[in-house]
This record gives sequence, C-alpha cells and structure tokens, in this order.
Amino acid sequence: MKTFACIAAAATLAALAAPAAAQFAKPEDAVKYRQSAMFIQSQHFGRIGAMTSGKVPFDAKVAAENAEVVAEVSRLPWAGFMPGTDKAGNTKAKPEIWTEQAKFKETNEKLMAETTKLSAAAKTGNLDALKTAFAATADTCKTCHDAFRAK
Amino acid sequence: MKTFACIAAAATLAALAAPAAAQFAKPEDAVKYRQSAMFIQSQHFGRIGAMTSGKVPFDAKVAAENAEVVAEVSRLPWAGFMPGTDKAGNTKAKPEIWTEQAKFKETNEKLMAETTKLSAAAKTGNLDALKTAFAATADTCKTCHDAFRAK
Repeated sequence: MKTFACIAAAATLAALAAPAAAQFAKPEDAVKYRQSAMFIQSQHFGRIGAMTSGKVPFDAKVAAENAEVVAEVSRLPWAGFMPGTDKAGNTKAKPEIWTEQAKFKETNEKLMAETTKLSAAAKTGNLDALKTAFAATADTCKTCHDAFRAK
Repeated sequence: MKTFACIAAAATLAALAAPAAAQFAKPEDAVKYRQSAMFIQSQHFGRIGAMTSGKVPFDAKVAAENAEVVAEVSRLPWAGFMPGTDKAGNTKAKPEIWTEQAKFKETNEKLMAETTKLSAAAKTGNLDALKTAFAATADTCKTCHDAFRAK
C-alpha cells in the first residue's frame, strides 16, 4: 500500500514536472529562476519581519504591500525544481527534494497557504495578527530549508 | 521653466527613492533584487513569445497565467535602481538611469501599463489580441534596454 502510494505520488509529480521541464531553456535557468524568486520573497518578507520585531516602525500599508508580493512570489519557485536541476548552477538544493517529492511538495503548498494568510493578516492592519502570521510563515520557511536546503 | 520642471522632477524622484534606499541592506542586494525580477519577467514573457511566434502551440490558459506573472513582477524591479547602485554587483545599468531619471521612470511606467494590457489581452483568449499586446510590451522592453542597459 505504501509502495503503491509512493509510485502514484511519483507518477503524479512526473506528470506535473513535465510541463515545468519544458519551461526552461536549460537547467541553469531553472536554478536561477527559483533562486530569483526566493531572493525576492526574502527581501519583502524581511521588511515585514523588521516591523514585527520592532526594528522599524509598523506601517500597515507598507506591510500589506510587502505581504502581497510575498504571497504572489511564493507561488513561483517550485517550477524551477524540475528533474535534472539538482546539480545545475550554484545550487544549495538537497537531493531530498527529488527523493522525497511528496514531502517537498507538501511544504511548498504549506508555504503558499501561510503567505496567503500573511497577506490577509497584513490587510487587517492589526500588528498582533501580522506577528502571528509572520511567525507561522517563518516556521514554514525554516522547516523546508532545514529539510531541503544545504547549509 | 524647463529647469524648474527638471528640479521638481528630481526632487520628486529623490523623495520616491528615499524609502527604496532604506529597503535594501546593501547596494548589492538592490542589484540582485532588480536582476531577479527582470529574469523572472523574461522567463514568463518568453513563454508568451514562444506562443505568439508559433514556436509552441497557443494555450490560452498558460498564456494568461504567464501574463499575470509578468504584470505582477513588472512592478518590482524599479525599487532596486536606487541611488548608489550604479556600480554595485555585476550590473549592466547605464549611468543614464540616474542622470535621466524622469525618462527612466517614464519607461518603467510604460512597461507596467503595457504588461497590464498584456495580461488583459491574454485573458480574452484571443491570439491576435495577445500578439498585439506582446509586440507592444516587447517594444517597451527594447526601448528601455537600448537607453538604459549596457550591451
């Protein structure tokens, strides 16, 4: 049963990965793409963190703008983790991304769910709500990085 | 009169640039940020171009998805062109970006307007409308690159 589930998951992921593979001219482009999306996310997420930690004054409008970008851009990196890009470019991607695809995909979806909540929280203008959503999102980043990104 | 307009424009741009300057920890981050956004744009825009040029079959849904990302991400790079980032990192940015800021800003706004039209055109599912909007957007990219990006 477990083996079947794994095979089914692998087949699904292969099917999902096929169009993604066709999207990039070369593996290095896929790596550059996912790193670009991650970097943009980190910049905007960091600006929210500066507010939730009190390093800079809370500005609800700025927080909402940044959270919206985070939510939008968090949808992007995953297509870049296509098969054959595990050693391309200057990647920190761990082999587990491809050997544990179901788990990887689950963390991707968790992040997208959390960034959607983050954006919604930011729109309320309530700093406590933003702090809660920021912490949950940061946890999701960390869980995925610990499992799937080399130091 | 013209001088006054230039001074007024410069003052406005300086005011706009001030918060942007505070957004990045160091000039290299600003360069990496703008290059990341440009690269993501180019990847998604190129996928639409592959369809409008007939290299790959037209898929209205895929075109609309890509155009939406282009429209979203086209809002981002400009904050990265903050003062003091003209020589940071491995940049192709020409000095004219900072010496002709009003013109640069105008091309930025033109691009955002064109990518909004591109996304709207893609949503219609009409290939001819998409071709027209794609060409207009590509022209805007080229005009700005010719003026403000080194070869």
